[in-house]
Amino acid sequence: MVSVRVRVPRAAAVGAVHVRTTPDGEQFFTDARVVRRTEDEDWWQGEVLCHNPVTTYRFLLQSDAEDVPAYRWLNGTGVHLRDVPDTSDFRLVTHAPPPDWAQRAVVYQVFPDRFARDETVEPVGDPGGPRTDLPDWAVPARWDDPVALGRGDNPAQVFGGTLDGARERLDHLVDLGADVLYLTPVFPARSNHRYDASTFEAVDPVLGGDAALLRLQEAAHEHGIRVMGDITTNHTGDRHEWYAAARQDPDGEQGGWYVRDDERWVTWLGVASLPKLDHSADGLRARLTEGPGSVIERWLGEGGGFDSWRVDVANMTGRYKGVDLTHQVARETRAAVDRATGGQGLLIAEHTHDHSRDVDGDGWHGVMNYSGFTRPVWTWLRAADFAPKFLGSPLQVPRLGAELVAETMRDFCSIVSWRAWTHSMTLVGSHDTTRVHTLVGDDVDQVRVAAGLLLTMPGIPMITYGDEIGMPGDFGEDGRRPMPWASRDTEDGLWDAGLVKHYRQLIALRHDSPALWGGGMRWLYAEGDVMVFLREHPEQTALVHVARAAHDGVEIPTTQVAGAGAAQGRTPQTAGLDVTGSGVRLAAPGPTVQVWTWATDAPAWEPVPETYRGGW
Amino acid sequence: MVSVRVRVPRAAAVGAVHVRTTPDGEQFFTDARVVRRTEDEDWWQGEVLCHNPVTTYRFLLQSDAEDVPAYRWLNGTGVHLRDVPDTSDFRLVTHAPPPDWAQRAVVYQVFPDRFARDETVEPVGDPGGPRTDLPDWAVPARWDDPVALGRGDNPAQVFGGTLDGARERLDHLVDLGADVLYLTPVFPARSNHRYDASTFEAVDPVLGGDAALLRLQEAAHEHGIRVMGDITTNHTGDRHEWYAAARQDPDGEQGGWYVRDDERWVTWLGVASLPKLDHSADGLRARLTEGPGSVIERWLGEGGGFDSWRVDVANMTGRYKGVDLTHQVARETRAAVDRATGGQGLLIAEHTHDHSRDVDGDGWHGVMNYSGFTRPVWTWLRAADFAPKFLGSPLQVPRLGAELVAETMRDFCSIVSWRAWTHSMTLVGSHDTTRVHTLVGDDVDQVRVAAGLLLTMPGIPMITYGDEIGMPGDFGEDGRRPMPWASRDTEDGLWDAGLVKHYRQLIALRHDSPALWGGGMRWLYAEGDVMVFLREHPEQTALVHVARAAHDGVEIPTTQVAGAGAAQGRTPQTAGLDVTGSGVRLAAPGPTVQVWTWATDAPAWEPVPETYRGGW
Repeated sequence: MVSVRVRVPRAAAVGAVHVRTTPDGEQFFTDARVVRRTEDEDWWQGEVLCHNPVTTYRFLLQSDAEDVPAYRWLNGTGVHLRDVPDTSDFRLVTHAPPPDWAQRAVVYQVFPDRFARDETVEPVGDPGGPRTDLPDWAVPARWDDPVALGRGDNPAQVFGGTLDGARERLDHLVDLGADVLYLTPVFPARSNHRYDASTFEAVDPVLGGDAALLRLQEAAHEHGIRVMGDITTNHTGDRHEWYAAARQDPDGEQGGWYVRDDERWVTWLGVASLPKLDHSADGLRARLTEGPGSVIERWLGEGGGFDSWRVDVANMTGRYKGVDLTHQVARETRAAVDRATGGQGLLIAEHTHDHSRDVDGDGWHGVMNYSGFTRPVWTWLRAADFAPKFLGSPLQVPRLGAELVAETMRDFCSIVSWRAWTHSMTLVGSHDTTRVHTLVGDDVDQVRVAAGLLLTMPGIPMITYGDEIGMPGDFGEDGRRPMPWASRDTEDGLWDAGLVKHYRQLIALRHDSPALWGGGMRWLYAEGDVMVFLREHPEQTALVHVARAAHDGVEIPTTQVAGAGAAQGRTPQTAGLDVTGSGVRLAAPGPTVQVWTWATDAPAWEPVPETYRGGW
Repeated sequence: MVSVRVRVPRAAAVGAVHVRTTPDGEQFFTDARVVRRTEDEDWWQGEVLCHNPVTTYRFLLQSDAEDVPAYRWLNGTGVHLRDVPDTSDFRLVTHAPPPDWAQRAVVYQVFPDRFARDETVEPVGDPGGPRTDLPDWAVPARWDDPVALGRGDNPAQVFGGTLDGARERLDHLVDLGADVLYLTPVFPARSNHRYDASTFEAVDPVLGGDAALLRLQEAAHEHGIRVMGDITTNHTGDRHEWYAAARQDPDGEQGGWYVRDDERWVTWLGVASLPKLDHSADGLRARLTEGPGSVIERWLGEGGGFDSWRVDVANMTGRYKGVDLTHQVARETRAAVDRATGGQGLLIAEHTHDHSRDVDGDGWHGVMNYSGFTRPVWTWLRAADFAPKFLGSPLQVPRLGAELVAETMRDFCSIVSWRAWTHSMTLVGSHDTTRVHTLVGDDVDQVRVAAGLLLTMPGIPMITYGDEIGMPGDFGEDGRRPMPWASRDTEDGLWDAGLVKHYRQLIALRHDSPALWGGGMRWLYAEGDVMVFLREHPEQTALVHVARAAHDGVEIPTTQVAGAGAAQGRTPQTAGLDVTGSGVRLAAPGPTVQVWTWATDAPAWEPVPETYRGGW
């Protein structure tokens, strides 16, 4: 039994509240009751029996006034005067929760070849080249060479970043305040991105091998930083040892580990080097997820190398034509992660569009929230005269006002549980997209706004290496430029120390603020250039004001921001808050991110007497 | 590969159209091209590869004009200026289609005990009583006795309608034009509704036994009428032979056929007489759906008794806590129906709310569309000063304007395939609800409007016995009054011959009109008291105007109703159509149902040259 509460403005003239659930697929109603009255609001509470692993619920508001509708639904998209489908019902999930640390985490994404070389060892050949031996496919590059563009799907240029190099730069993560290091793949492959693994049994010697990963994990842990790996459960590289065996003997054991269709090997989006794994094969499942020696488990835990996994192409894994084993793959992967980490590992799925059918089970904890965060943010902050195409779309993302951006976020939020929403990684870009700096037309003020949204909204913020220094770059290799460490203490324009400070301050603010890392989300204003929202936590409320351009001011009435009289500015630009008799007024002289916090004006909740009167 | 087309008004300034699908869970875009230009519209066509059993798609509209948004999505809920989830994407389904006859069908629902006695046999006891021996639990009633109210869940009053009685009244269905006879359960039980079956091996002798069912089916077939049975896959009665065996030996074979929780037998909504079946039991599945002797198969086909099944409580069947076997039950039931009928049987699931997660698989062809039809219609036509509660809701359905009603229908339509939408039964009431006559405050004009919506909208119309004569009744037994045959040729007010004629005319109109039984659905106007919509079929277009009250007139511009100049009135009230230079004007002196048809102004489609350029 779970108590659910809803705060109803007195002005809404609600005389009774009912809670609707659908246990075992049938509608069921219980009555809520008022448990608190404030000057402007009634707080209603209903008891929900979590009979199924996922319980959907919504509120039915009954009016007792002549001049307001007697019948209103409240679900994740707001108040409706008519019947609505169950799509946007709120969700309670009884599967085991994600690890506690996750909602406070800030992730820093590193593309190993481009983040940092090991400066303690000598170059192997060219004095400016990589410091480890390279395989035959690789084209060595000097750290300040331009990235090679237009090379298709299998980039060969290797700059020579290594895991020891990353270890030596952990101070940068510590300085920022990031506490998860997410490494894109480290297994041997035939590309610099390594999503075409040739084995899952060893770390690529080019990156320093297994020992370097263990050294990195150990050093990270000393700094309180967890390490997240990147695994391809959808496919392997075509030079993978399993695939070699499969091709040699298609009717043998490994032959069944890859999807075949009409005798043709199926590959990821037709890319010949990425044959697709067939998760209906028991042998593959055993190899991937069953026991301490399995791929998922063996690399996890203290001394394993990683503490969590990000799953590549999770949206397609296990899916082909009439077969859909995605939930099975997710469930088995999750079970392996839980076993190997004692429930302390995080499991994040790559997903590039509506992911509602893939979360809230007993698999992925969350996704990379491209659809509900990245794209909405892009539509607000993209340059007026430029925008990339993204994720296969034939059109540029549009440039929209805050009202449509907020609606988009609300819609995508409404179709998953709050738990999945808050345990999905938010990002304003990644190794797979255009850099945010380029997206916004190289306007650093807009990068600051993007960082502001990233670090004040719900979700697990993920920063792609280099975004914090103002690194530019378009989609693909251009977005994966080497980190210009040599510029850190120079004025050459490649390292924006002011922007780094902005990120550092926002991360610190988030870590210090239960409202920001753990609060709810309430939109107060979203129009054109301005967004204002509340993050509410039992201990603290945060008021966030973000603007992409100067504006004269918006008014938020007192009823929406009870307690704001005690607000304390938490960001440098706090001059814009004007507490008046009727509420607060927020203005901005230009693009801005402003946060105020105050102690939440709500009681510690007493245990509620049993009020459930429904039956079965 | 399927060609999908979209008609775009020239005024929308669309310069390019792209089709988005999500094969194997990944976004994929193809370009559409213009295949027809009319004075006002461009017809775009895209090619969709149906890679998965269910392919979702939507259109991305690209503007080429400065003053309109460059980026618009078109999905099942309309045009959107921002990203939207996949929820309302259009759907193509490659599972085997429903039988051809189904979309033309009109269903007549009969509650056997209340429809007709066999007048050819003598009463057994009381001259006014039933003509067959009754079991001990039954309380015999005379045909003109009032129904007994307030008896709880297991009504005992038996009026003595039989299957031979129904056979003798088939002329009534023929007269109306109904071509499917849907019988609520006929298996022995301990209630007059028989949803608590004590066996699935025999037809209740009270109804005339197996032979009477076979006689009824044979006679129905002679009239071109198919017979649909009613099966409880969710539960049986507590006197069922399986449950007796289960209780006697909980650890034996049948003990596993019923759901137990903590040693307690689980029942439907806590009703002790309805123990819930456990579909994880292989033995139960074999008994229910495997082979000619199984329950589902044995009663189907020529000489079997039924031609189709309606499945009771389908929304809960197979669901309990963490177990969800509903799709498995649906799939196995469907396979059994297909085997037993050579694919000519229809399988309809009872479902009382959002059914999107239960259709579009390889199971149910459709549902009883309470959520997308019944309730929206009720919210438009319920009496201003009266409305029942329905399906467990603690509130009366609201009374709304047509705009909200249309939005509700559109929302629920948008989350299932058109195939599932059009193969779901539409109904304005059933044996489980208040009668439509009572719902509308006994205003026969409103009943006529309800019938108009029922017979002109998409779906398989189902008429509950007695609705067509104006029978009143509230929820429960009161809605299951005996059919007053003796009043048919009298003026006693219990048989509204004018209303019967109205139903007869609408059914005939629907049968004769490919637009009404097989056309698309396009809303032209929905405000307050008035609905206007088009049903468009390649051969014919139907314009439907329905009003719940008098109105001065609405204008539909020519661009929306090309061809209306040749419109022919198909309903008695056709005076309201006024074709003007700029379109048509529709008015009504009172509640009305008006239909016009004309030959569709569209070419027969040529096979389209292969234009698909995407790849995998």
